[in-house]
Amino acid sequence: MSASADSDLTHDAFLGGRLHLWQPRQGYRAGMDAVLLSASIPAEKGQRVLELGCGVGTAILCLGTRLPGLTLTGVERDAAFAALARRNGGEALELVEADLSDMPLHLRQRQFDHVLANPPFYDRAASVASGEPSREAAHGADTPLQTWVRTAARRLAPKGQAHFIHLTERLPDIIRALPHEMGSIEVLPLTARPGRAPERIILRARKNGRGAFRLHAPLILHEGPAHIEDGDSYVPAIAAVLRDAAPLQF
Amino acid sequence: MSASADSDLTHDAFLGGRLHLWQPRQGYRAGMDAVLLSASIPAEKGQRVLELGCGVGTAILCLGTRLPGLTLTGVERDAAFAALARRNGGEALELVEADLSDMPLHLRQRQFDHVLANPPFYDRAASVASGEPSREAAHGADTPLQTWVRTAARRLAPKGQAHFIHLTERLPDIIRALPHEMGSIEVLPLTARPGRAPERIILRARKNGRGAFRLHAPLILHEGPAHIEDGDSYVPAIAAVLRDAAPLQF
Repeated sequence: MSASADSDLTHDAFLGGRLHLWQPRQGYRAGMDAVLLSASIPAEKGQRVLELGCGVGTAILCLGTRLPGLTLTGVERDAAFAALARRNGGEALELVEADLSDMPLHLRQRQFDHVLANPPFYDRAASVASGEPSREAAHGADTPLQTWVRTAARRLAPKGQAHFIHLTERLPDIIRALPHEMGSIEVLPLTARPGRAPERIILRARKNGRGAFRLHAPLILHEGPAHIEDGDSYVPAIAAVLRDAAPLQF
Repeated sequence: MSASADSDLTHDAFLGGRLHLWQPRQGYRAGMDAVLLSASIPAEKGQRVLELGCGVGTAILCLGTRLPGLTLTGVERDAAFAALARRNGGEALELVEADLSDMPLHLRQRQFDHVLANPPFYDRAASVASGEPSREAAHGADTPLQTWVRTAARRLAPKGQAHFIHLTERLPDIIRALPHEMGSIEVLPLTARPGRAPERIILRARKNGRGAFRLHAPLILHEGPAHIEDGDSYVPAIAAVLRDAAPLQF
């Protein structure tokens, strides 16, 4: 993304207006995935949280809005996104402009209690590039998913948790990429409608965790068997996450 | 299991009486898992099917009952189970008495269109041995799950499919054990009641398959939110599998 005039930006409300974020009018725009991921993180006051590839800061700033008292750090390699994340987060967010596969030493020497990432959904090799640079950076993965997963694991303190949201079809890739010391893996499938296959998963895993793998019942996002009319028709638990900054517990 | 007098055996009806199987009165007894696994296999007339650790032959003989015209081979290392499988299968089943990690050359030189297995649910290292030898053989895994998965993959013809039923908590172990050439992985979670976490998964994968991983919506086994009274209360699709030899399609 190139540097933007304010006219190229929108200022959007999240969490029922508790948070407003500047983001580019064109190209990649934060969506529900970032909000759901942030809502799933059981952070506690005083904990250190790192987001890899934070974009304009949506997920980590949603988390900081829901749970004040966290120490928030975001890594973003795109200069324009990084500038917007700084503007959005202000004092609340430490923004490190860096590629996650080449993070500065001061970051590589630190540990975090939670690391989150909403990695690009499509590998560049397997899909047609969109031609829009910022959309490409968010959706067109030239950093392998394995790098996201392993970098997250490396930055965790003992007993710290990694959190990812991704396409369901990448679940085996995430599982295979998790280093051996990451255990207590839990997967929450996200399904648009009852009976449908889940399109997304939220996966969390704990460093040095020894719990058995758990696959939770799918979380159904929308009420009713099909999209009948305009309006979002979210089930109450999802509406509470999006509008009232409620946690997404599993 | 030691050799049994008929008084130590039961002769049980499967698939609505289409199949009867001798099995030991005590110790490991075939259950719904074997029937569901067999119902999930989309075999076609003339195809070659191998079951690893077939016990008394429940899964593979259910498959042969539902789909006549298959060539059926079972491997079982326990002599008494193997004898019962021979008795149950008669001419319809080629029974090879062998440990799956040390199968005879004539078997290792052959390829199959489908390989199925219902591996032991618990690792011996992680659970207390039951003291009952045949229950131990079926539930107490001294053959690592990885060996089951890799042996199945090795015996597949190009484009052949492997089929497993197992505890949900072992899903990452199966995924990690699948050799690189196994693709088109599909997982069907099996859930007792709506909204519960799935206890079991059926996983299938195709040799040389290039399809994306698919996680299906859970299959709910029982009607209603809780067990109210006696009787099995299966949903119609499961009742049809168990009583009418219907396929379990996904």
